[in-house]
Amino acid sequence: MDDIIKYILEEDIGFGDITSNTLIPEDKCFDARIVSREEGILAGVEIIKSLFQEYGIEVISSMNDGDGIAEGDVILELSGNARTILTLERTALNLLMRMCGVATATNRVAGKVREVNPKIRIAGTRKTMPALKRFDKLAIAIGGGDTHRYSLDDMVMIKDNHIAVVGSVKEALAIAKENISFSKKIEIEVETKEDAIIAAEGGADIVMFDNMGFEESQETLKLLEEKNLRDRVLIEFSGDVNEDNILDYALLDVDIISLGALTHSSRSLNLGLDMD
Amino acid sequence: MDDIIKYILEEDIGFGDITSNTLIPEDKCFDARIVSREEGILAGVEIIKSLFQEYGIEVISSMNDGDGIAEGDVILELSGNARTILTLERTALNLLMRMCGVATATNRVAGKVREVNPKIRIAGTRKTMPALKRFDKLAIAIGGGDTHRYSLDDMVMIKDNHIAVVGSVKEALAIAKENISFSKKIEIEVETKEDAIIAAEGGADIVMFDNMGFEESQETLKLLEEKNLRDRVLIEFSGDVNEDNILDYALLDVDIISLGALTHSSRSLNLGLDMD
Amino acid sequence: MDDIIKYILEEDIGFGDITSNTLIPEDKCFDARIVSREEGILAGVEIIKSLFQEYGIEVISSMNDGDGIAEGDVILELSGNARTILTLERTALNLLMRMCGVATATNRVAGKVREVNPKIRIAGTRKTMPALKRFDKLAIAIGGGDTHRYSLDDMVMIKDNHIAVVGSVKEALAIAKENISFSKKIEIEVETKEDAIIAAEGGADIVMFDNMGFEESQETLKLLEEKNLRDRVLIEFSGDVNEDNILDYALLDVDIISLGALTHSSRSLNLGLDMD
Amino acid sequence: MDDIIKYILEEDIGFGDITSNTLIPEDKCFDARIVSREEGILAGVEIIKSLFQEYGIEVISSMNDGDGIAEGDVILELSGNARTILTLERTALNLLMRMCGVATATNRVAGKVREVNPKIRIAGTRKTMPALKRFDKLAIAIGGGDTHRYSLDDMVMIKDNHIAVVGSVKEALAIAKENISFSKKIEIEVETKEDAIIAAEGGADIVMFDNMGFEESQETLKLLEEKNLRDRVLIEFSGDVNEDNILDYALLDVDIISLGALTHSSRSLNLGLDMD
Amino acid sequence: MDDIIKYILEEDIGFGDITSNTLIPEDKCFDARIVSREEGILAGVEIIKSLFQEYGIEVISSMNDGDGIAEGDVILELSGNARTILTLERTALNLLMRMCGVATATNRVAGKVREVNPKIRIAGTRKTMPALKRFDKLAIAIGGGDTHRYSLDDMVMIKDNHIAVVGSVKEALAIAKENISFSKKIEIEVETKEDAIIAAEGGADIVMFDNMGFEESQETLKLLEEKNLRDRVLIEFSGDVNEDNILDYALLDVDIISLGALTHSSRSLNLGLDMD
Amino acid sequence: MDDIIKYILEEDIGFGDITSNTLIPEDKCFDARIVSREEGILAGVEIIKSLFQEYGIEVISSMNDGDGIAEGDVILELSGNARTILTLERTALNLLMRMCGVATATNRVAGKVREVNPKIRIAGTRKTMPALKRFDKLAIAIGGGDTHRYSLDDMVMIKDNHIAVVGSVKEALAIAKENISFSKKIEIEVETKEDAIIAAEGGADIVMFDNMGFEESQETLKLLEEKNLRDRVLIEFSGDVNEDNILDYALLDVDIISLGALTHSSRSLNLGLDMD
Repeated sequence: MDDIIKYILEEDIGFGDITSNTLIPEDKCFDARIVSREEGILAGVEIIKSLFQEYGIEVISSMNDGDGIAEGDVILELSGNARTILTLERTALNLLMRMCGVATATNRVAGKVREVNPKIRIAGTRKTMPALKRFDKLAIAIGGGDTHRYSLDDMVMIKDNHIAVVGSVKEALAIAKENISFSKKIEIEVETKEDAIIAAEGGADIVMFDNMGFEESQETLKLLEEKNLRDRVLIEFSGDVNEDNILDYALLDVDIISLGALTHSSRSLNLGLDMD
Repeated sequence: MDDIIKYILEEDIGFGDITSNTLIPEDKCFDARIVSREEGILAGVEIIKSLFQEYGIEVISSMNDGDGIAEGDVILELSGNARTILTLERTALNLLMRMCGVATATNRVAGKVREVNPKIRIAGTRKTMPALKRFDKLAIAIGGGDTHRYSLDDMVMIKDNHIAVVGSVKEALAIAKENISFSKKIEIEVETKEDAIIAAEGGADIVMFDNMGFEESQETLKLLEEKNLRDRVLIEFSGDVNEDNILDYALLDVDIISLGALTHSSRSLNLGLDMD
Repeated sequence: MDDIIKYILEEDIGFGDITSNTLIPEDKCFDARIVSREEGILAGVEIIKSLFQEYGIEVISSMNDGDGIAEGDVILELSGNARTILTLERTALNLLMRMCGVATATNRVAGKVREVNPKIRIAGTRKTMPALKRFDKLAIAIGGGDTHRYSLDDMVMIKDNHIAVVGSVKEALAIAKENISFSKKIEIEVETKEDAIIAAEGGADIVMFDNMGFEESQETLKLLEEKNLRDRVLIEFSGDVNEDNILDYALLDVDIISLGALTHSSRSLNLGLDMD
Repeated sequence: MDDIIKYILEEDIGFGDITSNTLIPEDKCFDARIVSREEGILAGVEIIKSLFQEYGIEVISSMNDGDGIAEGDVILELSGNARTILTLERTALNLLMRMCGVATATNRVAGKVREVNPKIRIAGTRKTMPALKRFDKLAIAIGGGDTHRYSLDDMVMIKDNHIAVVGSVKEALAIAKENISFSKKIEIEVETKEDAIIAAEGGADIVMFDNMGFEESQETLKLLEEKNLRDRVLIEFSGDVNEDNILDYALLDVDIISLGALTHSSRSLNLGLDMD
Repeated sequence: MDDIIKYILEEDIGFGDITSNTLIPEDKCFDARIVSREEGILAGVEIIKSLFQEYGIEVISSMNDGDGIAEGDVILELSGNARTILTLERTALNLLMRMCGVATATNRVAGKVREVNPKIRIAGTRKTMPALKRFDKLAIAIGGGDTHRYSLDDMVMIKDNHIAVVGSVKEALAIAKENISFSKKIEIEVETKEDAIIAAEGGADIVMFDNMGFEESQETLKLLEEKNLRDRVLIEFSGDVNEDNILDYALLDVDIISLGALTHSSRSLNLGLDMD
Repeated sequence: MDDIIKYILEEDIGFGDITSNTLIPEDKCFDARIVSREEGILAGVEIIKSLFQEYGIEVISSMNDGDGIAEGDVILELSGNARTILTLERTALNLLMRMCGVATATNRVAGKVREVNPKIRIAGTRKTMPALKRFDKLAIAIGGGDTHRYSLDDMVMIKDNHIAVVGSVKEALAIAKENISFSKKIEIEVETKEDAIIAAEGGADIVMFDNMGFEESQETLKLLEEKNLRDRVLIEFSGDVNEDNILDYALLDVDIISLGALTHSSRSLNLGLDMD
């Protein structure tokens, strides 16, 4: 079992579930169900199944990560020691509700954009919930989004602060290309048309339009097209995009739109455990 | 340093911040500021200060946990090795944004209720973000809420499933009082007036009205008053309460209203790091 | 498996049981028994069973935690790989002997007091053996004692040093009641009759008579009775109580007598492993 | 800091010292002293000093591990943040009291034997308190005892169960000498005079007389002398030796007497923390 | 300090350096130097400096990672507690000798190839020493090599086994491009000219010629050139390349040659610690 | 599972094997074989079997640690989930290749010496690969070598630096014999005939001839013989011995020759995983 899941259990259990250990006979078994209280996208069910199985609980599920769920749907059927089920209940639900919440938000946003512009990928960012990166990223993928890089060793991402230290987009790109392993992609943030051109010419794999707005983005894309640079790079659009305003940008001919809100501001899906 | 903070750093850093390590000279220093991009309540600044200091960054802050912050406020001034600041940036912001988000939501909800009924405590639940329990609970407290129990060993909380196994509220309470250390409080969920009376008579420290609604709650409180039981117990009101509907319940003469939404559905506060 | 049990194994095994690994054929199996060499109370057998099972040893036991054991009683029958049994032997015995030792001492003390005054609970303290808190507390409970608080986050316990800093019993209690979650009990140490009254009036859940002696305790209890405060609080008697002098205090009308000696000065029960 | 000390702190602190954090102002400092409440041998003071220093507390001590202490002696003077001192108090005292307890018992036993027979080393066993092996062994050494082996990889120790599987003392020794690294000593338990001779002839480094009693031990020693084997081996005497009966064996011409009681049945020394 | 460095220390120190702790007075200080006993490339000196500093040893070094070193060169001057230096000596040397060994081998191989064909990057593989991946990869980079991917989440690398399951190079590439985050590069192994063309046409970022030999590689490169595909992909040459035969391939117009031998078969550089 | 093996897996897997997880259907199973690509000694197969089994892969092996293997030999047959096998492949091979490499080198060196002088033991040193001590030492033993001490708490080893601080061989030995547990052997390095005599007279268990060369060693051995000291001590010969020059020393009448090269400079054996 993953260390972080063990940690999550321990922070909730402490020296033990004193209520269940006192009130429920040691050998008492029962059946229970994890049930959805609202509509959404299922994410994390494989992880939760493993968690219960690790502690000897039998689990039946006919639903899979990525499935749409409706209010009242039974997500998992559990059978086994009553103390164990009750002790694990909150931990399992908290994690599953979080993952479903992120997947549902991702799916909804991606669906909206797809209707308008099916070529755009919706991507997360590194603004994930602390300690939950692998779960948040997995939920984004299950919800139909692109995980974007997981961590700081994943891809080169040259930001304004890096450029400020080095001096220019051109120089920053040159240093990165010279020194970084061939196995990594290089992305660079730009804030002007000129820098976008320089980045594309300089061999960036991805150019991020950072808060450039619709109009300037469109002009930049046109300019890249004219200079035959558009095919050489992927374009990521970013900056204060959220579910409410994303359609303002969905008609841009970019490859990726990324939103931190998928993970830093999505709410958990409402799920519950019912005893039979 | 707390193991979980070390874990959070490692999940984001992996084998290293390849961008900063490639582009920023090893000895380069700079100054930077963590700035608020919106209004809220500050929570977590002590933790973030320690984090930066642990890595040799000088930190100046004139703001404290619990302070109100406005858009544009400088929360922390940082000074030190540029690679280090950039490597820690996202981890620090993610945690601080989360804690401020929870504190801000708590503060807003508690403020609303206080205007109507200053005797009620607003409390969180165990529906915290996995792995962030100590941070979520601390943020609730900073925001002016009651942490409620942290974990399953903290207090006895007898729920419907426990009562179902044991057979009755009365019996469940009796077993708990007989077997549980005198150092623990005993709370019990009830769904009817009758059970509320039985619980108070049985010596529960806290009786939780579980989804009983305004009217039945009011009648139950009156009944407890009539039977001279109201002073013997604390009353917690719970069940699908959120920021939108909480004022529907704020006039009840209960001691505590608890909401999972403070932690499972609050969004992070928008903060950023600006280089000088 | 609990991390601390893994640690205990590792500190004893190091790079391996070089004797058994050299002398015992890899596939050799045998049967063995854990046998009591003296009379006492069994505690920890569930933990030890799990430990052997985790390493593939079959375990049969007809005895349960809390059972009285006599010299010569077979506590566990083991069957399986000889190297494994011999490698685990000392670790398993050390832990079991410790837990039985604590449970036996607790049971003996509680029994003595019960004969004189069946209303008193015998409780442990936080003077547990370092790293063994969960085992020591469990052994106290198995032996018929009250665990008292496990750790510093469990209950508020206001001691002389806290009162000295704050200034008075009254003020200390007021601050605690205002700021501490409703889910926690509040206990306060007092050294005088006056402070006992103030504490009971101030709403302490538990008042601890700290080294007040028999006579002053009795007078204080009487005073509390007269002021109709006795029913509002639990009274804990503490201070240099040990198995030899506890009967000097057992006639007091207190609720709890606590002794650090149960864990800081009890000796292990004598158990051994016999090969068939 | 040692992982096990971190664990010991965490098991006692949990989510925090809620009492001190509520009642003591964050910046409050005070001075305190760790004082002995009885006579004994000091052990563990270096470890406890490091623990307080790690958390920013200033520590002054004029006493060293191994010093004799009298009732009322000041062992450590502490100065610093009040919350920190109070939070660490119990953990520090529990460990120090344990180590002093073991050292004191060792010192007392070794002193008794020394008066009668200064050539004998008093040694511990692997019957240490679970998780405290390094502290227990260090306390034995500080108290003037021999640590004996720490763990199963330290020395070969051939016991009755090993001999039973292999078939004979002679064969067991031969296998060990053939297969074990030259860097390890080989000790073997014997229960008869005959086996003692075989063990010495077979090249054991140490022969343990296992529960052989005074008389048979003396005869065996004489026989070894006659066969010119006595100088080739060390002799360890073991088996139900405790502080009360050890003088019954102290006149034997053995090299080592070992007692599990030093660690499985010694009580903690009484120490306390006084605030100035 | 990195967990793995802590582990490395613990595996060597165990319960303590019994020799130094017995023979060297506790407060004894001395000066010592880490000296090279042969020629090579320095790698790991920053890590070793931090290690000694963490334990309070003063360190002076005028040499940096990447510097060439000759026999007799002083790499680090140490000053401080003698027990500490002696206890850390072997761990520090073992790690430094390993890193210098890998860097030296990398540098020598890269130098040979550079003379013949300066456009080729020499890269490592995932055949690193278990538990030392971050040190081995860093040593490769310091020695002038390309780290290649660190781990399985770094880049997509489609190998023969993957292709066999999916059915074809074309299909495997299509699935990867559809499903993998835009932030990852995609590399694919091919064994024939035809598959190389398909891979380049299918949008692979890198095509690895897997054991294709000089001649077939050359023909494939020519074919890629003819089809205007050469500029679209990086070409990695791999398969049983070692220091002895690498010049057989250095004239190929490939971008990368990778060798597992840099880490699975390089020997440590000979360094020693001399006391002043 | 051993923590270090878990660490080794995690450093290679990170957030997951993105290639296999994308290309291989979740339920796909296959058979595979670990095959030797060259001749050597098998070491580590038990560990690797456990690793695959831990993850649910069925393993069949007719070969055991210590067996000679030829090119093409099937070492392990694997059957199970394809993603799992591919994810574990590199980690398993890296560890197995390392252990086989060390065992093979040890076996070859020991074989050479045995032909000339069957009484000499070939031993490793503490110059093991960082983090792999238990695997390197086990491989040495499997290859027919003596592990020598594992760590600093294993045996007393008095080196030149210790002697320099204490002042003389005689004094250093005396201190060690007085203070060290009887359970530990004492070895001392000497550089002259005179010190060798003093060491043997002083009761060292083992005397190491440190870089004394063939001739002086021979003279010293003769001198020890003459003084009837040779039988009282084991003699270890050490210093710049490697596979190429070891036969220069094999005719010496010493007990042990030790070589760091077995672990700091041996190369991994070439093994591969073939899918059926």
